[in-house]
Amino acid sequence: VPDNKQSLEYLFHPRSVAVVGVSTVPGNFANEFVLQGLLQCGYQGEIYPVNRRVSEIKGLKAYSSLMDTPGPVDYLYVSIPASSVPQLLKESIAKGVKATAFYTAGFGELGDEEGRDLEAQIVEIARQGGIRLIGPNGLGIYCPRTGLAFSPTSSNNSGPVGALCQSGGVSLTLIDVCEPRGIHFSKLISYGNATDLNEVDFLEYFTNDPETEIIAAYIEGVKDGPRFVKVLKEAAATKPVLILKGGTTAAGKRAVSSHTGALAGDNDIWNTIFNQTGVIQADDLNELIDLLMTFRFMPPLKGQRLGVIGAGSGGGMSVLTTDVCERAGLIVPHLSNSVREELLKFTAKAGTSVRNPIDCVVSTAYDPKGIGQTIKVVASSPEIDALFIHFDSNGFTYTHGLELLKAQAKSIIQTTQESGKPTAVVIRPVAKWAEMVSQLEQKYLKAGLPVYSSETRAATAIAKFIQYHQKIKGRK
Amino acid sequence: VPDNKQSLEYLFHPRSVAVVGVSTVPGNFANEFVLQGLLQCGYQGEIYPVNRRVSEIKGLKAYSSLMDTPGPVDYLYVSIPASSVPQLLKESIAKGVKATAFYTAGFGELGDEEGRDLEAQIVEIARQGGIRLIGPNGLGIYCPRTGLAFSPTSSNNSGPVGALCQSGGVSLTLIDVCEPRGIHFSKLISYGNATDLNEVDFLEYFTNDPETEIIAAYIEGVKDGPRFVKVLKEAAATKPVLILKGGTTAAGKRAVSSHTGALAGDNDIWNTIFNQTGVIQADDLNELIDLLMTFRFMPPLKGQRLGVIGAGSGGGMSVLTTDVCERAGLIVPHLSNSVREELLKFTAKAGTSVRNPIDCVVSTAYDPKGIGQTIKVVASSPEIDALFIHFDSNGFTYTHGLELLKAQAKSIIQTTQESGKPTAVVIRPVAKWAEMVSQLEQKYLKAGLPVYSSETRAATAIAKFIQYHQKIKGRK
Repeated sequence: VPDNKQSLEYLFHPRSVAVVGVSTVPGNFANEFVLQGLLQCGYQGEIYPVNRRVSEIKGLKAYSSLMDTPGPVDYLYVSIPASSVPQLLKESIAKGVKATAFYTAGFGELGDEEGRDLEAQIVEIARQGGIRLIGPNGLGIYCPRTGLAFSPTSSNNSGPVGALCQSGGVSLTLIDVCEPRGIHFSKLISYGNATDLNEVDFLEYFTNDPETEIIAAYIEGVKDGPRFVKVLKEAAATKPVLILKGGTTAAGKRAVSSHTGALAGDNDIWNTIFNQTGVIQADDLNELIDLLMTFRFMPPLKGQRLGVIGAGSGGGMSVLTTDVCERAGLIVPHLSNSVREELLKFTAKAGTSVRNPIDCVVSTAYDPKGIGQTIKVVASSPEIDALFIHFDSNGFTYTHGLELLKAQAKSIIQTTQESGKPTAVVIRPVAKWAEMVSQLEQKYLKAGLPVYSSETRAATAIAKFIQYHQKIKGRK
Repeated sequence: VPDNKQSLEYLFHPRSVAVVGVSTVPGNFANEFVLQGLLQCGYQGEIYPVNRRVSEIKGLKAYSSLMDTPGPVDYLYVSIPASSVPQLLKESIAKGVKATAFYTAGFGELGDEEGRDLEAQIVEIARQGGIRLIGPNGLGIYCPRTGLAFSPTSSNNSGPVGALCQSGGVSLTLIDVCEPRGIHFSKLISYGNATDLNEVDFLEYFTNDPETEIIAAYIEGVKDGPRFVKVLKEAAATKPVLILKGGTTAAGKRAVSSHTGALAGDNDIWNTIFNQTGVIQADDLNELIDLLMTFRFMPPLKGQRLGVIGAGSGGGMSVLTTDVCERAGLIVPHLSNSVREELLKFTAKAGTSVRNPIDCVVSTAYDPKGIGQTIKVVASSPEIDALFIHFDSNGFTYTHGLELLKAQAKSIIQTTQESGKPTAVVIRPVAKWAEMVSQLEQKYLKAGLPVYSSETRAATAIAKFIQYHQKIKGRK
């Protein structure tokens, strides 16, 4: 067994990458995702495509075998049938490859003897040869800083999120959904069957990685329970750890077994572990993304009291948003008379609620000065800890035009920032105005405000965020 | 008190509409929403804009007062300050107006004596004059068949949903979000403070309306509890009734009171009423929309056993989708060996799960024949009651290109329809490919398949749909 104490840092800046399994078939994953990903993400080392039949792929010289590549190969990307892997692995050792990632599936997860034998065989070869394996049945490493990538849709924007992900599809979705929302990664590892390097190794790495401030994980099962708990405890004591656990139901556990061959384990045990270590558990993939949004952009809150401001949303959405926030465990307190009086100095009495929720009447909401003043008054109240600003998802909002909505956004951003109160923004998507929604989202995100696509999703994530900080405080 | 037994049918096909409160101010609601809405929705009767200062608005001749309008006025739309309403109402009676809707706010919901007095006054005037009021503080009637509308974004597509909605903003959102999702209305009424015509009147109307097959409601409070329960019971015994209740928390109840002046009432009582009458309660606005999607497009299921098929979604999303379905109370059964063997006849063993969830490997998922065959095999199993087909929300899906994805959709639509098994489609939104997502959604919707934007939202709505049908069955 290799020394797991050795830092995995070298994995993230290989001098060269060989990609075995590129092809002339259109849409081939190794070509269109791995090679194209490396090129678009600006990987600076040498890239060696390997294919017996062609001499050039995507402007890169191709080699007929791994042994024919001219320089040293630090990182090998494998996308060939499982049965050919043992031979390739032996060549890799001869070549001096340090680590290899396998897109290839068809190992232990098949659940039959053949698959298990093949998996045992490659692990044996790798250990004897001192080469580290990521996968099989995973997409390997995404590291924006060094341009290491497995998808052409991933950018080279680095960020504070370190992610370990037992599913390739979930990895791609995380990258593609997080990127436009301003949530960027230090490193993301798609590690599939975890035959050699596994969740514990990556968790340990991220715990000590100065580039990683938030750890996110999609985990189906663990190889070594006691070691996992020990490392998780340390990780969660060092930085926030958000985990989406796959296989929390009987059928889900069965699906896990045929996906990565992992044992999903008992829910009660998992819940106890999460609880004791202070891990934040996400209930589905959207919730993991919302939690990432919150931990990335929201400063810690002093308490759970929200000033809920509907910027022209109408009274009904104010009622519903308030219900949703309170059901999630947040508080929408009745604000004192002084706030009401301040607001009534400049806003119409009719069509407005001024006691929290604040249902900002149209003439105030779409007047940049009016919405700014409203926020200033509400934010300055010592009765609330944060602002929760929501917009209507219908034509009434968008017929005001992008310019006015941008002016509104500018005023909201400026006044919330001046107020120093943590602020969440909810912009519900609406098909007909998708382009305007997207531009407004970007404006808020670029100013560092978290943006959510529903009041329920925002409230759920913020409530868990507050719980986390209360727990942290309790520990100190 | 007017005879509530009289059918409200006349409300929906007035010979003429007068709009008082049109203005020369840009963006004015009466102009841009009401007048423009009537014009775009193709209202066939006479439209009389009323404004003292102009002679023409939006190509329509304007009149300086209601009394100056040439023909009879059946329906009056009021958007003037609250204090001027009593006088206008007296004129309306003289003019022979049958019903009037008030966008105008500033009545009982203000919570002060002035507002309450004004509200009592207009109700008194209306009752004496035999004119019916909708609102105040509401948007009135949307009836696509007759072109009656209050928003330029509403279409004249008629559908089976009758909606009563105590919030104008929620009404607009319902219309704007439902329209592109193929959910159309027979009538929608935004009824605000419900001073005269109220929730019970509209509920009773929809119960007997042959154009309405599904009743949806956003309700903040009721005026007459016992009568409401009696009518609701009858409504829910006649057709599905979906209710989103505003004010289910302490702060939400307070917000209700300042929004429409309603008493939100005790949650336990509401829950008992919903339970006893068989009403389906939505927990938030998105859930109401998902329920509408389900009741509109999903045929009744024989049971809660799903065949979960990930069309190239990857194993992780299959695991997570399965967890979410089972947590919602649905069942993802382990399919028998015969299904597995049938599937393995044409699909690769590696990278696939074939025991349910079905994690359809890429080479099969994006081959229209392959995905079709997969669905055929799974759908024909007597071990499942419905299909739950989901797609990945990342570039891997969309780099296959719109043409291939449309061919995939065509095959999915054809084989699910041939199978006769109820089918749900989940297409998770992803900003970068929003346009492709939208086109694919439309393709599935046009074929009559319900489309949801997350596995969690789909599972929650479908579970409630099944519960409803089980309850109905139990009654018979």
